[in-house]
Amino acid sequence: MQKRIYLDNNATTMLDPSILPLMQPYFCEKFGNPNSLHKYGTETHPAIQEAIEKLYNGINAADSDDIVITGCATESNNWVLKGVYFDEILKKGKKHIVTTEVEHPAIGATCSFLESLGVEVTRLPINAQGTITAEQVAEVIREDTALVSVMWANNETGLIFPIEEIGKICRQKGVLFHTDAVQAIGKILVDVQKANVDLLSFSAHKFHGPKGIGGLYIRKGVELTPLLHGGEHMRGRRSGTLNVPYIIAMGEAMRLANEYLDFELSAVRKMRDYLEDKLLEIKDVFVVGTRENRVPNTTLISVRGIEGEAMLWDLNKAGIAASTGSACASEDLEANPVMVAIGADKELAHTAIRISLSRFNTQEEIDYTIEVFKKAVERLRNISSSYDA
Amino acid sequence: MQKRIYLDNNATTMLDPSILPLMQPYFCEKFGNPNSLHKYGTETHPAIQEAIEKLYNGINAADSDDIVITGCATESNNWVLKGVYFDEILKKGKKHIVTTEVEHPAIGATCSFLESLGVEVTRLPINAQGTITAEQVAEVIREDTALVSVMWANNETGLIFPIEEIGKICRQKGVLFHTDAVQAIGKILVDVQKANVDLLSFSAHKFHGPKGIGGLYIRKGVELTPLLHGGEHMRGRRSGTLNVPYIIAMGEAMRLANEYLDFELSAVRKMRDYLEDKLLEIKDVFVVGTRENRVPNTTLISVRGIEGEAMLWDLNKAGIAASTGSACASEDLEANPVMVAIGADKELAHTAIRISLSRFNTQEEIDYTIEVFKKAVERLRNISSSYDA
Ligand SMILES: Cc1ncc(COP(=O)(O)O)c(C=O)c1O
Ligand SMILES: Cc1ncc(COP(=O)(O)O)c(C=O)c1O
Repeated sequence: MQKRIYLDNNATTMLDPSILPLMQPYFCEKFGNPNSLHKYGTETHPAIQEAIEKLYNGINAADSDDIVITGCATESNNWVLKGVYFDEILKKGKKHIVTTEVEHPAIGATCSFLESLGVEVTRLPINAQGTITAEQVAEVIREDTALVSVMWANNETGLIFPIEEIGKICRQKGVLFHTDAVQAIGKILVDVQKANVDLLSFSAHKFHGPKGIGGLYIRKGVELTPLLHGGEHMRGRRSGTLNVPYIIAMGEAMRLANEYLDFELSAVRKMRDYLEDKLLEIKDVFVVGTRENRVPNTTLISVRGIEGEAMLWDLNKAGIAASTGSACASEDLEANPVMVAIGADKELAHTAIRISLSRFNTQEEIDYTIEVFKKAVERLRNISSSYDA
Repeated sequence: MQKRIYLDNNATTMLDPSILPLMQPYFCEKFGNPNSLHKYGTETHPAIQEAIEKLYNGINAADSDDIVITGCATESNNWVLKGVYFDEILKKGKKHIVTTEVEHPAIGATCSFLESLGVEVTRLPINAQGTITAEQVAEVIREDTALVSVMWANNETGLIFPIEEIGKICRQKGVLFHTDAVQAIGKILVDVQKANVDLLSFSAHKFHGPKGIGGLYIRKGVELTPLLHGGEHMRGRRSGTLNVPYIIAMGEAMRLANEYLDFELSAVRKMRDYLEDKLLEIKDVFVVGTRENRVPNTTLISVRGIEGEAMLWDLNKAGIAASTGSACASEDLEANPVMVAIGADKELAHTAIRISLSRFNTQEEIDYTIEVFKKAVERLRNISSSYDA
């Protein structure tokens, strides 16, 4: 049988197999609508309640804060930006949003849409270390700034942004602060109280939950016009019949993410570091960002002379799944935008390979990957027109 | 063991048990992100493709039309209204939306939101037959009408609205036409080509698919600003990582809905009619709307002198799940809005019970329900202060 080695956990993850049996009864037995008053409805409540509590614990939300279930982080992100557009910009006359150049398209493209409606957006560039500073944020906040939205960890590089400091600045200046924490949960400690965030997006499938469910943390007192208007679901904040099995799954995935956090920060990091060390032995290979400031599972690596896609292809043939960057962008063969932002030359920007591990990877898989990677580099550099060894 | 008889299929349905094994492999084995270029991504494509084809066949969409997967019908409905707001109202200067008084809150509340932005909304009242006519629509369409949105079948009464005729009028007048077909699919034939609709919403969990996934049919050539901006998923129309297991499930649920349509229109209808006949034997009991113009699974029945909630409670104690109306509204004990609209007196409007069957019900369950229902009426009328036999 062909090997199957999955090293693309920033694109999506395997559902933790221990979660499947927890969802199962809610498809064909306890299938009621939680809003129904009869037994089929009410018998779903304990499991939903438990799942929501796991979410609160997972990000250390206060009881008085709100966590609203959404269809995905893309929905959460759109909701924040479009909600702020109605509440702060249309109603209160603010005009300005601060974000970064390297947000996920669910932020980036939504900001462009808001620009088409007259909103002014400042997109902070990342520095040579691949991140931004809280000072950069402080400098661009204006009287009419409605929102600062900065991701907690970047999906391509795994680099961690200074959320706590940015949160402090936003609080001082009285500006709403949102963070897209999709790539942080399960990889580093995410504590909404410590981080001073007002709004935080997450997506279950990035931490071994199912695809197609996410959430938005909303600090107590923050108003946000719904993106999905309708009935009274979720205290009137987000309409739509509840996806009971996936809510249960997301709760448990969050609990496991925290249970395994030490493992992630030790064992997974150790495997990642080992892999990185070995690949850095290859000549003309570069890794983006320091390890200290990176989530423990991610390496964005460039191999001079080899197109990222060519490399992926060789890995894929050997049964190894990696990526050239975010899965969303992978259909067009453009230069990696983060590589461009940190100042890589154009040729190098086409060579980036993202390797992202999870707690389900093994040292054996890593050893095999190193072997395959080295052979692929040799083969591809031999036939490369641009690389001269 | 307590009996479990589920007669609330307009609130939500059981996942067809034959679907579960089809989703299963996509949680922990073929769990890749369909947008990824490697094997984990591409191996999901055939099943997704097959599911999408089942959706096209299910509503008879043309190959050149679009069916976009959404998180639920609430999202589809919000998308249509807010998309039209940007495309037709903000950009083209139109001002007006036509809908009905009895739409689901995902339409009703979203229209109210748009009104707060200055949009003019005409909500057509239903007539004594519980429906609206195409003429009513024709009369209120104006030069600046951006959209007509009329549900295909009502969730509370099951009454069918004249979609084909309304579609013709909208086409003649050059107005976009959307229908919320959530309660029609699996119950009557839904053919988008015959019906002249431009946009059509559906939700999997109303036809034995999972909760938390739906779709929007978009006729070829219709532009619609995304509600979820982001990457290039779904041809740039709806962003967010694809929920592979649920897409597969929704496709199969749609196929089964069509396979069982004759059964629904014969066997399910026969059970419903039998139930209705028996309950109508009780004195001072009324059913809303003619059977000819109703989906085959639904009865909205009023029992003079008995609060709907009291009746539900007796049914629930006997293991029977029914509803006072839409699940979304069931938390507040208000008069049934459809009952009010068709002109029921205030007392009667509080007595409505919705019984909605599915292909999984049996004649035995119906017999038991009739028995329990009759006993409950007797008991409750005995202790009723408002009813004088
Ligand atoms: C940083 C970040 N934000 C948001 C998303 C969107 O998540 P989803 O596709 O689940 O909506 C992703 C992943 O796709 C991501 O990496
Ligand atoms: C007519 C109608 N439209 C829309 C919806 C919303 O569907 P969902 O809750 O799956 O978004 C429902 C049911 O809740 C409905 O009955």
